Amino acid sequence: MIKISVIGFGNVGQHLASAFEKNDTVELVQVFSRSGKIADVAFSHKIVDDLNDLKPADVYVISVSDKSVAEVSRELPFSGRLVVHTAGSLGMDVLDPKNSKGVFYPLQTFSKNKSVDFLSVPLCLETENAADLELLEEIAKSVSKNVYRIDSAQRKALHVSAVFASNFANHMYAIGHDICTEHQIPFEILQPLILETANKILALSPRQAQTGPAVRHDQNTIDAHLALLSDANQKNIYQILTHSIQNEREKL
Amino acid sequence: MIKISVIGFGNVGQHLASAFEKNDTVELVQVFSRSGKIADVAFSHKIVDDLNDLKPADVYVISVSDKSVAEVSRELPFSGRLVVHTAGSLGMDVLDPKNSKGVFYPLQTFSKNKSVDFLSVPLCLETENAADLELLEEIAKSVSKNVYRIDSAQRKALHVSAVFASNFANHMYAIGHDICTEHQIPFEILQPLILETANKILALSPRQAQTGPAVRHDQNTIDAHLALLSDANQKNIYQILTHSIQNEREKL
Repeated sequence: MIKISVIGFGNVGQHLASAFEKNDTVELVQVFSRSGKIADVAFSHKIVDDLNDLKPADVYVISVSDKSVAEVSRELPFSGRLVVHTAGSLGMDVLDPKNSKGVFYPLQTFSKNKSVDFLSVPLCLETENAADLELLEEIAKSVSKNVYRIDSAQRKALHVSAVFASNFANHMYAIGHDICTEHQIPFEILQPLILETANKILALSPRQAQTGPAVRHDQNTIDAHLALLSDANQKNIYQILTHSIQNEREKL
Repeated sequence: MIKISVIGFGNVGQHLASAFEKNDTVELVQVFSRSGKIADVAFSHKIVDDLNDLKPADVYVISVSDKSVAEVSRELPFSGRLVVHTAGSLGMDVLDPKNSKGVFYPLQTFSKNKSVDFLSVPLCLETENAADLELLEEIAKSVSKNVYRIDSAQRKALHVSAVFASNFANHMYAIGHDICTEHQIPFEILQPLILETANKILALSPRQAQTGPAVRHDQNTIDAHLALLSDANQKNIYQILTHSIQNEREKL
């Protein structure tokens, strides 16, 4: 079994540690949590709060806040082993050179109190040394069916794409929620629409799937919507995204 | 059985007619299609292309483009019956007063070549006369488990919410798609993230579910993303939505 320790116990670290703990290809050796909190998890006895307590492992997965990755990699009290981080927005080079470097980036949105089917989470891999890539791939394939080789430059672009497709899409839900609340409409009415809009992209490209007054150039409806919106920020976003949809179509 | 005819055979009309044809509470009497095209559907023998050929029915559902609803309702060669439209953005009052008015608005995004589970489609109902509302509810509940009474003012607000939560969310997918294409990244990597982002709103409010550099006030990542975006429109949208997410959180 491939021995893995997870360093960091935030949203990503918790989901990763759980996925490793549950499978037979890898052995979850330890989980480092600075606060040392023993959460209510199957592997709570493996949690350590001192980097000096880390035992030998084949791979160390650093899953801490972006700004702490470099520092934690420097603090590791060993060298010559494989150390990877999980950050979409960081290059591989932020890791300290005393260990072999790699990236194990799960492209998913993780929230506390919301479980995730890890098998469907795309894992984007990169390593400094070719041999390490095979090891990472074996690990990745043991927990996910979607494994990709993505270099640092691509990963940064992918991270920006994900901000649009996930963070900003969610913000569109939030504005829809606000408008519903303002007009005493239960938000649940929008839920099937939100799910279907997302599901459509499995069958159609986002451009093929685009519907609504903007893409129809239905100026009457657009004007009525702008007149109804009382919030200046919502109105501004409505106009900019309407123009963006219309200009995009003209490029086709 | 309640007799229904559907007037119009666009995306919504086709999905409605199919749902009515398949159930035992209502009888699909006829479908009016101006082009008279006999599509490859179970009820193609019920398609007529002349409004004068419409037989008596309990309800006529007008499902044509928004701008044609009023005109089609005037052209109907009968009076004193129940006529409803399916347009989210139109008031009930656009319908000609010679018939009893109502609205039967399915809040879903319909595309050709993409089937929809009609049972989960929210149906928003409104009628001029109370007795008609009971009839519409019986019909609606025969095809969907999500039936709501929504008046014209609420429906207009709901339609704007839907533009954000569906049309604009889809446009965020489209921009994510463009960025992936530009960097030779397969868009399929983003699909699980998009689905999970949508599914989250069943468990969390959109504000609780918000993740990403904007809500974390992670200015390093935001700056790196803006530097990476070469398209001025994408950059503008990134900045405006980042500010919007941050200002929204401050209001909490």
